[in-house]
Amino acid sequence: MSATAEAPDLTPEFHAAAAPLRPGDHRVWSLIVTVFGDLARAEGAQIDGAALGRIMEAVGVRPEAMRVALHRLRKEGWIESRKAGRGAVHALTAEGRAQSEAAAPRIYAARPEVPERWFLAVGEGAVEAGAGEVQLAGNVVLSAVPAAGLAAGEVAEVPGWVKATLCSGALFDEAAALERALGAVKPPKRLAPLEVAALRALVVHSWRRVALRTPAVPARFMPEGWAGERCRALVVALLTALPRPEVGQI
Amino acid sequence: MSATAEAPDLTPEFHAAAAPLRPGDHRVWSLIVTVFGDLARAEGAQIDGAALGRIMEAVGVRPEAMRVALHRLRKEGWIESRKAGRGAVHALTAEGRAQSEAAAPRIYAARPEVPERWFLAVGEGAVEAGAGEVQLAGNVVLSAVPAAGLAAGEVAEVPGWVKATLCSGALFDEAAALERALGAVKPPKRLAPLEVAALRALVVHSWRRVALRTPAVPARFMPEGWAGERCRALVVALLTALPRPEVGQI
Repeated sequence: MSATAEAPDLTPEFHAAAAPLRPGDHRVWSLIVTVFGDLARAEGAQIDGAALGRIMEAVGVRPEAMRVALHRLRKEGWIESRKAGRGAVHALTAEGRAQSEAAAPRIYAARPEVPERWFLAVGEGAVEAGAGEVQLAGNVVLSAVPAAGLAAGEVAEVPGWVKATLCSGALFDEAAALERALGAVKPPKRLAPLEVAALRALVVHSWRRVALRTPAVPARFMPEGWAGERCRALVVALLTALPRPEVGQI
Repeated sequence: MSATAEAPDLTPEFHAAAAPLRPGDHRVWSLIVTVFGDLARAEGAQIDGAALGRIMEAVGVRPEAMRVALHRLRKEGWIESRKAGRGAVHALTAEGRAQSEAAAPRIYAARPEVPERWFLAVGEGAVEAGAGEVQLAGNVVLSAVPAAGLAAGEVAEVPGWVKATLCSGALFDEAAALERALGAVKPPKRLAPLEVAALRALVVHSWRRVALRTPAVPARFMPEGWAGERCRALVVALLTALPRPEVGQI
């Protein structure tokens, strides 16, 4: 049984909508990063400690777990907190905001922002995959911008073993399961801002795990039946149906 | 001193024209293959033993060396010989003719017959270069027709290390030396058919060594300063100036 049942101010409609996304089953640290990225990514944006606590409670996180995660996030430079009256106010650090900004297009874009031209890039010796590149062998990466000195050949399509390298069986299965889960989420018409914020956090966080592990390659390079792009479409539709609430109203 | 000096029926003009191509310095076995490929490649074509002996003498090969080479060529299935009067008549075998036909375009064509589209072809495991392919690494070949199952990327240009793989320093230097030698050959206006046949043999044989070791890739993949294509132009010009003689007149 998820911890959300303890939250008395949540409607049955919220619980029904959230259930497919399994509140209570997510990593707290990463859920908090998701909430800040979703609601308070802009410079100067912040979330009141009490509001954050209510969102976390709604997605099945106990207060003690949230405190531990916040402590770790502060220590690692993601979040900064300051006292405000009897409570605290939290915000992304400049570094946390930069990381969040960097990940946002891959999570929120309706169409994946993917280079169209890709190259097999072969080194005379070992080659290490850079950002956005995929290692295919010790001396070969798949790259949109091959480094100087590498032999580069433009790829039209890729064989099965490359697709399997781009998309592990685990990632493939996770995307398929996520498609089923997202398809089962029916956002009710009337939800409190807190409930909208919590549902958005569950949607974005579930998708984020898949989106950030998916290489930024054209869909034709992914295995037959890859559910990632259908997940993206479902996420976009859900987030449109659940407009971002004002943080002050949560 | 080359053995050609012993041939009393050769003109000084022939000796002057042949000198840059170093008669006497070539592998006999391969010279004979060259002569048959140049003068008697057609089905049913043959060369009289005496005429072959005169050509070999003109390019600096002693009769005993020719006999040993012919013996080996018969044993390896390249040449077949039959008695004719007091002497012998030699011809390519069907297999020898097939090999000779296969090599001819790369040796005689005025323009290299080279596929325009080339691919880096990467295997999940080891890949072995097939005919016309170049091994770049254990798992990578440069190929005009990549095998199924390989990841293939079309190559526009190649970096220096690929050029060095396509063309060894030894091949590069040999082509440069050949360009100088061929440029120094001034075919005289009047030569006997024997002299023409011998000069052609020296030209073709010298070029053949370079031509058959040169990968059939576009010129832009070869190292800067590669002399092979200039050699080809010189060879075509020399062979045009030295039209193939009738074998019966040698």
